[in-house]
Amino acid sequence: MIRHPAFTVEPWSIRESRLDLDVLAQTESVFALSNGHIGLRGNLDEGEPYGEPGTYLDGFYELRPLPYAEAGYGYPESGQTVVNVTNGKVIRLLVDDEPFDVRYGTLHEHERVLDLRAGTLTRRVLWSSPTGAQVRVTSTRLVSFTHRAVAAIHYEIQAVDRPRRVVVQSELIANETQEYKAGDPRAATPLESPLVLEENVPGTDGVAIMVHHTRSSGMRVAAAMCHDVDGPDATRIDAQGAGDVGRVTVTTRLSPGRPLRLVKYFSYGWSVKRSRPAMHDQVVAALAGARLTGWDGLCADQRRTLDAFWRSADVEVTGDPEVQQAVRFGLFHLLQSSARLEDRPIPAKGLTGSGYDGHAFWDTEIFVLPVLTYTYPKAVADALSWRRSTIPLARDRAKQLRLRGTAFPWRTIHGEECSGYWPAGTGAFHVNAAIAHAVTQYVDATDDTSFERDTGLPLLVGTARLWCSLGHRDPAGRFRIDGVTGPDEYTAVVDNNVYTNLMARQNLLAAAEAAARHPGRAAQLKVTEEETGGWRDAAAAMCVPYDERLGVHAQCEAFTQHAVWDFAATKPRQYPLLLHFPYFDLYRRQVVKQADLVLAMHLCGDAFTPEQKARNFAYYEALTVRDSSLSACTQAVIAAEVGHLELAYRYLGEAAMMDLADLEKNTVDGVHMAALAGAWIALIAGFGGMRAGRGRIAFAPRLPSELTGLAFRLRYRGSLLCVTTTAEATTYELLEGPPITVTHHGDQVAVAGSVTRPNPPRPEPEEEIHQPPGREPAPRHPRRARRSRS
Amino acid sequence: MIRHPAFTVEPWSIRESRLDLDVLAQTESVFALSNGHIGLRGNLDEGEPYGEPGTYLDGFYELRPLPYAEAGYGYPESGQTVVNVTNGKVIRLLVDDEPFDVRYGTLHEHERVLDLRAGTLTRRVLWSSPTGAQVRVTSTRLVSFTHRAVAAIHYEIQAVDRPRRVVVQSELIANETQEYKAGDPRAATPLESPLVLEENVPGTDGVAIMVHHTRSSGMRVAAAMCHDVDGPDATRIDAQGAGDVGRVTVTTRLSPGRPLRLVKYFSYGWSVKRSRPAMHDQVVAALAGARLTGWDGLCADQRRTLDAFWRSADVEVTGDPEVQQAVRFGLFHLLQSSARLEDRPIPAKGLTGSGYDGHAFWDTEIFVLPVLTYTYPKAVADALSWRRSTIPLARDRAKQLRLRGTAFPWRTIHGEECSGYWPAGTGAFHVNAAIAHAVTQYVDATDDTSFERDTGLPLLVGTARLWCSLGHRDPAGRFRIDGVTGPDEYTAVVDNNVYTNLMARQNLLAAAEAAARHPGRAAQLKVTEEETGGWRDAAAAMCVPYDERLGVHAQCEAFTQHAVWDFAATKPRQYPLLLHFPYFDLYRRQVVKQADLVLAMHLCGDAFTPEQKARNFAYYEALTVRDSSLSACTQAVIAAEVGHLELAYRYLGEAAMMDLADLEKNTVDGVHMAALAGAWIALIAGFGGMRAGRGRIAFAPRLPSELTGLAFRLRYRGSLLCVTTTAEATTYELLEGPPITVTHHGDQVAVAGSVTRPNPPRPEPEEEIHQPPGREPAPRHPRRARRSRS
Repeated sequence: MIRHPAFTVEPWSIRESRLDLDVLAQTESVFALSNGHIGLRGNLDEGEPYGEPGTYLDGFYELRPLPYAEAGYGYPESGQTVVNVTNGKVIRLLVDDEPFDVRYGTLHEHERVLDLRAGTLTRRVLWSSPTGAQVRVTSTRLVSFTHRAVAAIHYEIQAVDRPRRVVVQSELIANETQEYKAGDPRAATPLESPLVLEENVPGTDGVAIMVHHTRSSGMRVAAAMCHDVDGPDATRIDAQGAGDVGRVTVTTRLSPGRPLRLVKYFSYGWSVKRSRPAMHDQVVAALAGARLTGWDGLCADQRRTLDAFWRSADVEVTGDPEVQQAVRFGLFHLLQSSARLEDRPIPAKGLTGSGYDGHAFWDTEIFVLPVLTYTYPKAVADALSWRRSTIPLARDRAKQLRLRGTAFPWRTIHGEECSGYWPAGTGAFHVNAAIAHAVTQYVDATDDTSFERDTGLPLLVGTARLWCSLGHRDPAGRFRIDGVTGPDEYTAVVDNNVYTNLMARQNLLAAAEAAARHPGRAAQLKVTEEETGGWRDAAAAMCVPYDERLGVHAQCEAFTQHAVWDFAATKPRQYPLLLHFPYFDLYRRQVVKQADLVLAMHLCGDAFTPEQKARNFAYYEALTVRDSSLSACTQAVIAAEVGHLELAYRYLGEAAMMDLADLEKNTVDGVHMAALAGAWIALIAGFGGMRAGRGRIAFAPRLPSELTGLAFRLRYRGSLLCVTTTAEATTYELLEGPPITVTHHGDQVAVAGSVTRPNPPRPEPEEEIHQPPGREPAPRHPRRARRSRS
Repeated sequence: MIRHPAFTVEPWSIRESRLDLDVLAQTESVFALSNGHIGLRGNLDEGEPYGEPGTYLDGFYELRPLPYAEAGYGYPESGQTVVNVTNGKVIRLLVDDEPFDVRYGTLHEHERVLDLRAGTLTRRVLWSSPTGAQVRVTSTRLVSFTHRAVAAIHYEIQAVDRPRRVVVQSELIANETQEYKAGDPRAATPLESPLVLEENVPGTDGVAIMVHHTRSSGMRVAAAMCHDVDGPDATRIDAQGAGDVGRVTVTTRLSPGRPLRLVKYFSYGWSVKRSRPAMHDQVVAALAGARLTGWDGLCADQRRTLDAFWRSADVEVTGDPEVQQAVRFGLFHLLQSSARLEDRPIPAKGLTGSGYDGHAFWDTEIFVLPVLTYTYPKAVADALSWRRSTIPLARDRAKQLRLRGTAFPWRTIHGEECSGYWPAGTGAFHVNAAIAHAVTQYVDATDDTSFERDTGLPLLVGTARLWCSLGHRDPAGRFRIDGVTGPDEYTAVVDNNVYTNLMARQNLLAAAEAAARHPGRAAQLKVTEEETGGWRDAAAAMCVPYDERLGVHAQCEAFTQHAVWDFAATKPRQYPLLLHFPYFDLYRRQVVKQADLVLAMHLCGDAFTPEQKARNFAYYEALTVRDSSLSACTQAVIAAEVGHLELAYRYLGEAAMMDLADLEKNTVDGVHMAALAGAWIALIAGFGGMRAGRGRIAFAPRLPSELTGLAFRLRYRGSLLCVTTTAEATTYELLEGPPITVTHHGDQVAVAGSVTRPNPPRPEPEEEIHQPPGREPAPRHPRRARRSRS
């Protein structure tokens, strides 16, 4: 039984033309709108039915106790959980006394379209009530990229056949009930009525305002709404507010041909410091600003923002309309997750669902930021500024763990460690190297010196110090990092994880180099030459396990001596393995949840010879079950690099379709930002062969037979470049900025206007590749293609 | 400030002659009485003040949910917690309207004596009330070894100076309040009012009966009491029962010279199957039986049981009265913990406190049963029969963990895994080898063929199968056991822990040999020759890591490559380390909580050369912090074996004084059965050099300069042997049973009557030994010696 949503294939939009309540929750994630500050799930206007109601504010959370059967030193006592704040999306409708509810009456037509260029979600419905009253409802909603605190809905209702009495109730609702999904550790823990009412003002002019605070985290949230109403003369507007509901009611009698139009503006603000009156005024002011801009103005701003974004970021894929759609869908959600961050984190699910409790992990730095670095760099500076702002917390955590420097959390919203599983929370230190990596890549791509000095250097120094205190010299002089957890979550608490060690090496060297470039700031941070010398020495002595017998790198010490997982005896229903086997057994066998050594080969490619890459890839392919959404894109990149282009293409498909086809079966909890970024990574780093660093950007374009063309735009050091490749040749075109030299398959190419170079012939890979039985890249189930109307 | 109890040093008793309320809880554990079925903490008769009120029934528990911040496959959902059941110890006293409470008035004299030959706890008090009413109270209590369900108290009160009005309230109280000790993972989780009242009958004749059941575990407990009262003529007796209290009140007027004497008999029963009326009748019947025997009869039985025990088990130590007392105290508590087990477990704290939730661990099999094997073997058969009865649960657990055979729990009361910490609950598989070891030692010492066939073989086979499925062959053909946790709890989830691997080897060979001896029973268990061949092969190929560079065994793979713990930077207040440092950091460094490799050298001595033993011991001494009570005795044994006799003596002291001096600061939660056994182990296996197996028993007596003599008795294959050693020579005397051949320092000696052999000269050990700074064996604070009055 197919349990994923069916969207038509269009280049610039996601369209649903049939409502399937079984996958309603998935579509709510896919159709979520956000500007990085406010996130609205794609819930139906009328509030019900829903999969999960969701309105989120980036950084706004409630605390919940973290319980332990057996407590231990350093275990966090409370976790942070994203809160479903006051819902401003709700517009209920009564037609001749019958509530509009798609579960009753007849839904003649239903369509929802997420327009990737307009930045809007439009819904068109033709519905008859159980008593036969037919209406057409059209709504368009947006979360403004230009008015950070504002969302708006344009709502239109028409009587179709005869006059109808219509009541529209536009609401603000707090503390909506949510259902508990027991047993899946990836879902969030719902909070029961997390918001405490402080104020509920049904104001004049159809304005309503509500202020709440959380019980434990001490955060205050304000929401307000106002309305422009255009209806028949007899239209009447009332406002009421009681308890956790604020309501503006518009009552009218509609004749066919004279619709009721309503523009609902709603705004949010939150703070841990500002008072109730200040918050009240803040959201009212935001409404006033939005109303001044007006609906058409908001829409025009929205499109302008997206036009600029696509000019820098668009990717054109010829030969695979699904992937074409998916990569744009992914870029759109990346923009949504980050456009108006302003020193707040990018959660693993953005603001599209409550999955993973709304926490940000290392995948933001390793998968999401690298894409934004070349397409929307401002957001990267924002996201890393947030990390920078949490340095005091990371320093405290390091102290608690008896380490030096900064220990950034495995999962968090505000900066404190929220992992209740110590092999992650005090094991997956690689998150620190991920932050350093994102800093290094961003600085390389933008040459943003002041950022490097003020934001990058403190991050690099704190993490370098952490590695120095985490590692030690063995009697042979090698620098070992023992007892940590790498990216592969089916192996934990190991010695010398290759990925961790190589990333730590990068981190140590980057810190030393940045300190040398900013000696004044480095001195403020008490960095001495002796210390940077120590970083360089540790980097040079870094231990990297290699199994001479097999001729491959061991993912960590002793990994290749462990028993190989019994894949033959594992049934398809036993995946993901973590839900069916105990950790101890997964950890002690050769089975890989997600790219780990293979990710090291992508991010630290220089540490491997081409032959090692080929052999390592073949070895780890046979062990990797991909029970994580953070794997396919990396496998695509290295598959392409070692010449397995068709396999890379299949992994690209899996990364790209993660949410549109709900491959992990948890798109209900929100879309997977890292996997969405993965489509871009698979295309640009995979088939484009893009690698950048130390002021150089290199390409090695090679297409799989399934694709006839690939064009992508990216920004590097002030230049906007368009790279267009076919099976035969690649054209580099400078769209903006100073001339730039790129590397094309190893050759230097100066790009001032447009330059074309042939692609060298494709080599035949020697290694045979196979995956564990049944764990091959997900098969593609082609979706209905539809000619775009735009 | 000294915060441990002060007992006088006497050979056959533990005497407290001053009441110190600061250490009241510790004395409650030390003075606990038990027969292995019922356990009474040494609470004051009048109920208050108390450290922790405690009345326990072996095997009786309530369930509590085990919470997890992040759940995982195979984590137990509920744990079992020992219940403080109906308290029958309470005898309150009112003297001229003033309640007898040692916190008020004046305590002129106070003495408590635990008599190790009488099996009683006697208390003598001379007290004046705040208004000056002076009384003398003498109480003696016992938990009967011969009447399994019965305890009794002989209570006497005298007016001292003038007549006094006296009211004695003898009670049964359920659901006593308990204080919560937050933060220490070794303490129990108290349950709020765990017992639900079913029946409270204040009967005739001063009999009271109460029946309760638990809310979740479905267990029913009944308690009853009756009284023999001997007082002045005007003495009046009433009975009341309401709520969770049953009360018999004795009112009288006492003149000096005419005391009131009361014998309180109380009895317990519990069941998951029997009905309320059946339980009611059961406890009443037990009372009737006890009353028939009478107080004097119970005391005589008690002494007879102990006389027989000491005849088999006594140890005489010349030159150290403290150790003399301590080893008898330990043996007494071992007997108390096991005398009337009857297919129930021996918890880590016996029935003396609620520590570790009343769970049984591996230490019962490794430390407690080996002592009982040679001194009170019946209890060993009982304890292992309990393990045998839990095989179905262990089989289910193995299936859940995707393993074959049986996986016995790390901690439990009833047999289900109750560990909420997966590196223990799905890591410390060595508990299985511990069970096999106990079986093997018991069968060797007793030649109990029917036990081996019916109880031993199923245990050996199930655990051997477990090891086969836990391990695997590496490409070099070695049998590896990866990703498990050995005894040292500061290292977890490692490959090829030497202790685990050697004990597994022992387990596999023992299973193969036992199967060969009992082919019929083996066939019933579906053991084939092919399977036993596989066990032998795996045993032969067992991987045992050895560090050639250092010339020592690595406790586990890679152990010796890890950084050594920074002992110099660790402050005394940072011990135990687990309360001050995160697991990940302890795990990845060379720091040892408790004997692990050193324990392997004791239990699998044949696997090491004498030179390896000496080098290994020196190496691990420098790393061992002894944050566990399960270490000193083993260090004593190997220190003695490698010739460091004075060091062994200091470890003996630590093991022996664990509870009498409260060295671990948690005697409040109950005495440490394994450490109590450790005093015997340190003496007999350490200075006696006793090792047994394969039908042979060997000694290598050698005394440290501090001891002038050591004599001990033990049973081996039907013979009762007394071994007496001095600095010069050892005498072997056969007290009972057939002649026996022993090994004396490598020479065979036939013992029919009494044989004396000289001890060979003491060799000078080559290795220098040092411990981490500040972690040397605990210094002895000599206690007051007092000439025994008995």
